[in-house]
Amino acid sequence: MNGADRLCETLLANDIDVCFANPGTSEMHFVAALDRRPQMRCVLGLFEGVVTGAADGYARMADKPAATLLHLGPGLANGLANLHNARRARTPMINVVGDHATYFLKHDAPLASDIDSLARPMSQWYGRIGRAEEVEAKTLEAYEAAMRLPGVATLVLPADAAWGELPAGAPPRRVSLPPFRSVAPEAVRQAAETLRSGRRVALLLTGRALRADALATADRIAAATGARLLMQTSNSRVERGAGRVAIDNVPYPVDAALAALADIDAMIVVGAKVPVAFFAYPGKPGLLVRKDCEIVDLARPGDDLAEALAWLADEIGVAAEAAVRVSRGFTDETALPGGTLTDDAVALAVARMLPEGAIVCDESITAGARFFGLSQDSAPHDYLRITGGSIGIGIPLAAGAAVACPDRKVVALQADGSGMFTVQGLWTQARERLDIVTVVFANRSYAILEGEMRNVGVNHFGRNAERMLTLDDPALDWVSMARGMGVEAGRAETVEDFVRLFDGALRQRGPFLIEAVV
Amino acid sequence: MNGADRLCETLLANDIDVCFANPGTSEMHFVAALDRRPQMRCVLGLFEGVVTGAADGYARMADKPAATLLHLGPGLANGLANLHNARRARTPMINVVGDHATYFLKHDAPLASDIDSLARPMSQWYGRIGRAEEVEAKTLEAYEAAMRLPGVATLVLPADAAWGELPAGAPPRRVSLPPFRSVAPEAVRQAAETLRSGRRVALLLTGRALRADALATADRIAAATGARLLMQTSNSRVERGAGRVAIDNVPYPVDAALAALADIDAMIVVGAKVPVAFFAYPGKPGLLVRKDCEIVDLARPGDDLAEALAWLADEIGVAAEAAVRVSRGFTDETALPGGTLTDDAVALAVARMLPEGAIVCDESITAGARFFGLSQDSAPHDYLRITGGSIGIGIPLAAGAAVACPDRKVVALQADGSGMFTVQGLWTQARERLDIVTVVFANRSYAILEGEMRNVGVNHFGRNAERMLTLDDPALDWVSMARGMGVEAGRAETVEDFVRLFDGALRQRGPFLIEAVV
Repeated sequence: MNGADRLCETLLANDIDVCFANPGTSEMHFVAALDRRPQMRCVLGLFEGVVTGAADGYARMADKPAATLLHLGPGLANGLANLHNARRARTPMINVVGDHATYFLKHDAPLASDIDSLARPMSQWYGRIGRAEEVEAKTLEAYEAAMRLPGVATLVLPADAAWGELPAGAPPRRVSLPPFRSVAPEAVRQAAETLRSGRRVALLLTGRALRADALATADRIAAATGARLLMQTSNSRVERGAGRVAIDNVPYPVDAALAALADIDAMIVVGAKVPVAFFAYPGKPGLLVRKDCEIVDLARPGDDLAEALAWLADEIGVAAEAAVRVSRGFTDETALPGGTLTDDAVALAVARMLPEGAIVCDESITAGARFFGLSQDSAPHDYLRITGGSIGIGIPLAAGAAVACPDRKVVALQADGSGMFTVQGLWTQARERLDIVTVVFANRSYAILEGEMRNVGVNHFGRNAERMLTLDDPALDWVSMARGMGVEAGRAETVEDFVRLFDGALRQRGPFLIEAVV
Repeated sequence: MNGADRLCETLLANDIDVCFANPGTSEMHFVAALDRRPQMRCVLGLFEGVVTGAADGYARMADKPAATLLHLGPGLANGLANLHNARRARTPMINVVGDHATYFLKHDAPLASDIDSLARPMSQWYGRIGRAEEVEAKTLEAYEAAMRLPGVATLVLPADAAWGELPAGAPPRRVSLPPFRSVAPEAVRQAAETLRSGRRVALLLTGRALRADALATADRIAAATGARLLMQTSNSRVERGAGRVAIDNVPYPVDAALAALADIDAMIVVGAKVPVAFFAYPGKPGLLVRKDCEIVDLARPGDDLAEALAWLADEIGVAAEAAVRVSRGFTDETALPGGTLTDDAVALAVARMLPEGAIVCDESITAGARFFGLSQDSAPHDYLRITGGSIGIGIPLAAGAAVACPDRKVVALQADGSGMFTVQGLWTQARERLDIVTVVFANRSYAILEGEMRNVGVNHFGRNAERMLTLDDPALDWVSMARGMGVEAGRAETVEDFVRLFDGALRQRGPFLIEAVV
């Protein structure tokens, strides 16, 4: 038994039994230890952005962390962009980053780098194991942090701590899952008072407040008090669709967001962050609520959001059995308009055809903008979205969600520009036979940036802007790329093509990619 | 004129006229400024690892920095792994990283992160612009640092510094290129004394000491004194092939390196780093020279290495016209053995067929191991290699070298596992019509790690090790992936196939990929 063995056992003892990995030489003892434990499922990503994005998708659906295995500073660095998204989503995750043996660091070998400095910005908890004897305690510390914050925990495993021999000891400690924290009664009273104040009040939700039951409670509160229900622009996971409460998000475009929030006098925040713009624009405010809008914290991340909403409902006297206003589902049975495929036709077709229990992973950016509104009437589904604005999460997120929920169909809505950032994730989908339909919106441009260029007053693009914002020379052939990674694929140029391909993909199991030329 | 305009003008005034880019919303004013200056060549990478790897390849061949344009912390993070390689190569580079407007940072918007902490580990110089008025001075500071260190300079450009208006002023200052530093005469005398000491002496070279003229000088010194010539395991650029001095590198495997250096009593270091192992192995030393080996610093990075060698030759009285021992080229005219393709057959075929003036970018890892020895007899060429051990540099490095040298053929030797890390770079090769032949050694495994697993005593792989170290389920179809990104491609399964495809690729212009199934 060595330190690496102890690390594996400690993870397994706490029900962490999936490890997304891209190992290197300094992690060979850890790989050997994983190999001795077939109950741990190791999933290879061909790039670390795939590894961390998949761990995010997995935890959002499994409600428990996956481990990742990353190779030194550069391997961690490759995974950082999706750790950034996970940090914003407050996804529990335990990154195990290999490092050189402690006594070897002084040599500044070619792969040495300042892992501490790289890890901290995207980790809500960070720790370093000193020697094999510390492995269990540090791993448990990382696990508890990931669960309690919740968030990204990054743990450095030096090679000599991995290979250091340990006496065979007692089984590792199983930490009882930390319960969510209950909010203070005073916070509930204050929120109730705000709701009764007669002002225009919004409830801003995120996290587990967006599961169907908590949403139903929130909706009863809103119906009883006239408050508006809103959720953050981007959220880790939302349970939505027919039979569930419809809830708008704070719009992404700054002007639309300002307009949507202009009349709010008080905002009750439920695990969420007070809305701010994604970017600064000259002459526009960063804060999206009015300066005089009162902010009332009902609950913070890590608090029991569902319980807080239930207590608030009690406090204001809403009956648990009060009717909930839910989506009724699509009632229009007319056929989709046919002909040339457009963004909106894809969005409508997917929304209408979405199977019950699907998991939607949405990184469609501009092209799929209409999907969110339309899909409120889709069959009941989970909706997962890019949370930190760091593009390249879609393909890995879908892979992770599919690993967590093998019996559910995953539908990934993927912008083409963003998709290229972690395109290698398609191979992991094929390797693991994951049940995912990826719909690529092939508009062959960074369409969001073309809009932003117009926002800064540039309407006619010269050669350099053209060369930086368009992807059409050459056009990416997604069918060919997908097949190259072992994923079946087809191209749709008409609505009829798309419906046929999407229907076929829904009927089969395993990964399939549709290039929707829009 | 705004800050972004001033940044472009300052770069152009100092002959920095290539910008590898992947922009985002916070860099729109910079994109607009670049668009107003068609004399700046903007090259889009579909992922930031492509951007930074290409900037590295460009600077190695152009002997001047390129600029990069990276989107906030996540964009920088995606580029860090190849910045790590560039840092180890001491490649001059100026990264321009966009950031939120200074007054907006307090909002901790979704894309905000600690850029300082992310940038420092892989940057030899780091700076942040406060406002538009500081743009010129800070850019010049970055430029001088990149040239003088030499190394990676990372400069943060907040959005309000980019859009801040400036009065039309004098043209930006052109900094005279900093001359390399001359070494101290005492260092030369000490090195000469070491050479005359009668001990077994090695000259360890890197950087510009590996250009043909400097190498010839070093060889005259070695021939006159009996010293051994060696270069670092990995170097930024080596001029080699027929008519040039042959020089061995310190071997990568630790046992081979220890054996190669066991008899060295004194090592004269010329811009290089005293050899250490890539990784720690239980019971093996980290330092590759003997503990009692004397280290003599002739020159450090940033010193004029060619001049230092010339002075050393003078000091020991070697005539400039003394004969130089050079490679004679391939003399064996027998045909290549035909039949099933192997690693070594590919290496031999490429070495024999390499055209004069080619630029070889080598990230073939284990599969191409024999190429380096064989290619000493190839036609004269430049040899560029992964320097920091952070895989995923090959495809971008080739792209950057081809941008720098449009009239030379670039031959990229690419391991399949590493190639997947930045596979998106193939699209940039197609977009820019770069004259590159990429040879993928498709062994469908992380072969280096399979060897390292055996090094830790694991000879029979279970399911988990198998799943983390092999890439054959499904096999990657490189021809399909390349075509999907607009690069012509073919697959070789026999030596005859390979020779035909490679010959055809050499005769045409533009990117071509050969999947060599080995």
